[in-house]
Amino acid sequence: MKLVTAIIQPHRLDDVKSALEAAGVKGMTVSEASGYGRQKGHTEVYRGAEYTVDLVPKVRVEVLVDDPDASAVTEAIVSASQTGKIGDGKVWTVPVDAVTRVRTGETGAEAL
Amino acid sequence: MKLVTAIIQPHRLDDVKSALEAAGVKGMTVSEASGYGRQKGHTEVYRGAEYTVDLVPKVRVEVLVDDPDASAVTEAIVSASQTGKIGDGKVWTVPVDAVTRVRTGETGAEAL
Amino acid sequence: MKLVTAIIQPHRLDDVKSALEAAGVKGMTVSEASGYGRQKGHTEVYRGAEYTVDLVPKVRVEVLVDDPDASAVTEAIVSASQTGKIGDGKVWTVPVDAVTRVRTGETGAEAL
Ligand SMILES: Nc1ncnc2c1ncn2[C@@H]1O[C@H](COP(=O)(O)OP(=O)(O)OP(=O)(O)O)[C@@H](O)[C@H]1O
Ligand SMILES: Nc1ncnc2c1ncn2[C@@H]1O[C@H](COP(=O)(O)OP(=O)(O)OP(=O)(O)O)[C@@H](O)[C@H]1O
Ligand SMILES: Nc1ncnc2c1ncn2[C@@H]1O[C@H](COP(=O)(O)OP(=O)(O)OP(=O)(O)O)[C@@H](O)[C@H]1O
Ligand SMILES: [Mg+2]
Ligand SMILES: [Mg+2]
Ligand SMILES: [Mg+2]
Repeated sequence: MKLVTAIIQPHRLDDVKSALEAAGVKGMTVSEASGYGRQKGHTEVYRGAEYTVDLVPKVRVEVLVDDPDASAVTEAIVSASQTGKIGDGKVWTVPVDAVTRVRTGETGAEAL
Repeated sequence: MKLVTAIIQPHRLDDVKSALEAAGVKGMTVSEASGYGRQKGHTEVYRGAEYTVDLVPKVRVEVLVDDPDASAVTEAIVSASQTGKIGDGKVWTVPVDAVTRVRTGETGAEAL
Repeated sequence: MKLVTAIIQPHRLDDVKSALEAAGVKGMTVSEASGYGRQKGHTEVYRGAEYTVDLVPKVRVEVLVDDPDASAVTEAIVSASQTGKIGDGKVWTVPVDAVTRVRTGETGAEAL
């Protein structure tokens, strides 16, 4: 299994959620973050105002997937979050050794 | 080393903390998140009210452990967070290459 | 690629940011967390007051780096966040399979 993590622009979250559902993912986790990339945040626009501090608000999206689904899920997130402007975000994948569904105790791909 | 991450129901955090202390873990990190699983959040109950939006509030718990402790720590979290209702949560394990304790500069299992 | 994650004291964030820029990192992600280490949080001081609850406020810093940079980035974070007091923090590294820059679709080290 893999964990696909994306840092996206907050206003793209609804589209990313829809894209993930269309891609058939079984669940997702969302949390707040802030950050900067190559431009150190200095030239990013947030809610219509140019952002002068360097940590720009972002949203983190995490999706546990079966190995063969990692690249399709990454592509779904990229398509849905891409505006073509700097600060659009970053998506990465990390290997996962084990997953358990708490309610049932199921493990492995069954637990996704 | 391994990083065990759990997304649990917020009202189970105290029990999970106690279970982790009983299991002998050396520390933990807690943060806020929200998410949904197989039911897309539609049928989950939060604070007594059925939740109509699809991102249900959850708590993230992370524990760095030595390799042989990962499954016992997972089991401790699962037992302590399980209510038998949908939305109980998910626990996963990721490999960790290196850990450092900031105060002392110690690394590896000594740093946990 | 690697993901270096640090849990640091909130008042060290500015110094850590400067140290990371000096170390040449291309970006970072910051989020709120709380936690405890070996002392279970009982003897930590936060904003001048001894902290009586066990989950002490912390900041999470995450940096995606190329493999050869992981240890230098870890050292930069450790130096910048170290005060010598308990609760100074923890830094760990996790392997990353793939990274994509959302705006351009670039992948791998080019995407950092
Ligand atoms: N190297 C990195 N490590 C950790 N997080 C990063 C890194 N680079 C970017 N991020 C996170 O992703 C968010 C979006 O980054 P961003 O899209 O600006 O990347 P970029 O490489 O600068 O691309 P662009 O040139 O399109 O702006 C940042 O706010 C930050 O939270
Ligand atoms: N595939 C997934 N990827 C990332 N996070 C997930 C995934 N599935 C669930 N989660 C996270 O775990 C939380 C709890 O999930 P949940 O317990 O509803 O899983 P489930 O598989 O639907 O199990 P159940 O049938 O018992 O509800 C979600 O709110 C979400 O934050
Ligand atoms: N084993 C662990 N798993 C997950 N997070 C941890 C762990 N240990 C510490 N942390 C996180 O790092 C933060 C700082 O930990 P801390 O610096 O107190 O570690 P420590 O090992 O107790 O070192 P010290 O003796 O210097 O206090 C904690 O508040 C927690 O968020
Ligand atoms: Mg950028
Ligand atoms: Mg569910
Ligand atoms: Mg401590």
